[in-house]
Amino acid sequence: MPARPGDALADVDTPALVLDLDKFEGNLERLMSAVAPRSVRVRPHAKSHKCVEIARRQVAAGAVGICCQKTSEAEPFLAGGIGDVLITNEVIGSRKTDQLAALAARHPAARLGVCVDDPRAVVQLGQACKQAEARLDVYIELDVGHNRAGVATVAAVVALGRAIGAQTHLTLRGLQAYFGSAQHRRGIAERRQAIAAATTLAKAARNGLLGAGLSCDTITGGGTGTFMLETTSGVYSEIQPGSYALMDADYSKNEQDPAWPVFDHSLFILTSVMSRRKDDLTNRATLDAGLKAYSTDSGAAMPTFPGWHIRGVSDEHTVMHRIGDGPELALGEKPLLIPGHIDPTVNLHDWIVAVRNERVEAVWRVDARGAVF
Amino acid sequence: MPARPGDALADVDTPALVLDLDKFEGNLERLMSAVAPRSVRVRPHAKSHKCVEIARRQVAAGAVGICCQKTSEAEPFLAGGIGDVLITNEVIGSRKTDQLAALAARHPAARLGVCVDDPRAVVQLGQACKQAEARLDVYIELDVGHNRAGVATVAAVVALGRAIGAQTHLTLRGLQAYFGSAQHRRGIAERRQAIAAATTLAKAARNGLLGAGLSCDTITGGGTGTFMLETTSGVYSEIQPGSYALMDADYSKNEQDPAWPVFDHSLFILTSVMSRRKDDLTNRATLDAGLKAYSTDSGAAMPTFPGWHIRGVSDEHTVMHRIGDGPELALGEKPLLIPGHIDPTVNLHDWIVAVRNERVEAVWRVDARGAVF
Repeated sequence: MPARPGDALADVDTPALVLDLDKFEGNLERLMSAVAPRSVRVRPHAKSHKCVEIARRQVAAGAVGICCQKTSEAEPFLAGGIGDVLITNEVIGSRKTDQLAALAARHPAARLGVCVDDPRAVVQLGQACKQAEARLDVYIELDVGHNRAGVATVAAVVALGRAIGAQTHLTLRGLQAYFGSAQHRRGIAERRQAIAAATTLAKAARNGLLGAGLSCDTITGGGTGTFMLETTSGVYSEIQPGSYALMDADYSKNEQDPAWPVFDHSLFILTSVMSRRKDDLTNRATLDAGLKAYSTDSGAAMPTFPGWHIRGVSDEHTVMHRIGDGPELALGEKPLLIPGHIDPTVNLHDWIVAVRNERVEAVWRVDARGAVF
Repeated sequence: MPARPGDALADVDTPALVLDLDKFEGNLERLMSAVAPRSVRVRPHAKSHKCVEIARRQVAAGAVGICCQKTSEAEPFLAGGIGDVLITNEVIGSRKTDQLAALAARHPAARLGVCVDDPRAVVQLGQACKQAEARLDVYIELDVGHNRAGVATVAAVVALGRAIGAQTHLTLRGLQAYFGSAQHRRGIAERRQAIAAATTLAKAARNGLLGAGLSCDTITGGGTGTFMLETTSGVYSEIQPGSYALMDADYSKNEQDPAWPVFDHSLFILTSVMSRRKDDLTNRATLDAGLKAYSTDSGAAMPTFPGWHIRGVSDEHTVMHRIGDGPELALGEKPLLIPGHIDPTVNLHDWIVAVRNERVEAVWRVDARGAVF
């Protein structure tokens, strides 16, 4: 454990995930205020934080529950008292459908949902639930443009709806219509266009289901980059933003609509300067955090201070060079970095150190760290 | 746990790290045979596998011990009976030097080493060891060209040597002279040139220490891309390759000298096809492994089969498109990928599933997973 409640921030072991509680609480509040005038439900995506305590605070702020990506990821949240969990992903293969049905059976009072995009999966889920005497909510995943999963036609949606209806232990809830790749399109106009198309398709799919005598109570989707578009679409009934609570360098590059809420970076990597060289040839500070402390898939981390450029990142090192005025970064000093991509970064850590006014208030477990199954 | 001994490979849960034991054992043997005619010691780097069972097998094959990068990473190896561990990295700050000294005190019969590149760290380590009544071996890190850590002049090496000599609980062992960035220079000539320069500097540094009446028993360095050069240098007495045991897509891009041993890919990501679309518009298979199952910092993963191209990787998905003849990749099928970069990939997993002839022989814990402190 990198710290204990009451420790000074300066005494936290490194590299560690540090959460600025004031900024985090501000993010939760700004999201809820922004969507409050609309009748959408908020179901934050927990894949970005994997932390039961954060989910509890999201629910306390008004969220209806959370999203997860995997059965094993849903497990600690259900065990931790989050009573409404949607796995926004397909669960394929009898080993996995058995695990999911068993999880549902262990939490009969909770609401647990999953996505499908293939009729064989519907049959397998239905049989697993029957066997386990469990019930699952099912959402048909609609491919609204990412071409990653989901079906792309109304006919396929209706066929899946009928297949779900034929299963005694599955309940058709509606549509998963998340446009993943649209979240990071930098321009507002591009994102607006993407979500307009997604909304049109989702509406047609819902009408298809209703026209076939099937139900479609919920259309769920939307992430941190687009959720205001889904919120005001008149079609989506639920949004799934995740990164808004913590933020990252990648999301902060998006162009912002002035009418949308702005979220602060609340999660940082606390590092230590572990090697320092300053002579005629180089002015270099090396930090003790590398690819095992933050991921670089969506670009480099961002220093929270000026005057330094990240030259390279290896397994356990970040090498920085001085390029202007900024802090000295003496040996042992503890600079903060903003991770490039929050989800795979949090997944590297066992603990989140929650800090207020430079003092550790709590240390939370990253409960679903490594939950890939 | 994704599998149990005796399970068929096809029944292993996904995504999982799968080790081909025949190939792994071949790699261990080929390394030892290649260096056997020379008088260098082999100290494999355990940062790439983080697994005590793999370290035990490396020692059984003739390694003198292992390397680690962090105090917390060294801990499970010492506890697991590896009696000679070198932390090839600087340990800075009183919290961290206290942790290291405490670890040394808990294992008085083991040999534990650490690197330094700053006289303040020498004093801090010396005091921490005195306090804990522990002893540490100390290696002066020489910057042989990576400019990441280490000192770059003979004068600085000698000054550090004297500082170490002044500490009652530290023993100067020699030089850490690892050229990290040279490992991945694709051409043999480039790597040869880099290690020739490193060798010249290491020799000068050793002569500086000896000339000042200080000792320098060991010059250690060399990774999977260059170790044959250090082995035949006449100056290095120890090599530190890590990736050779498992290999990855990045290392396999290096030009190979025909006289050097060739290592096989032995570690794979077992995945499942979780979504499949095949119509007039697209022929797409989506796997249930993404950035939380393998890292992409050194390039994409590599399919072990032809005919498919990886279009994109997100947190929990790999999207592939069919571009030629190859397997069908039906829903639920379990293709294998070769990770782009082994070290941060292994660090994402809790288990390594060791397989021989398509059957699980053992499931090993990734003991030092997440050990960043």
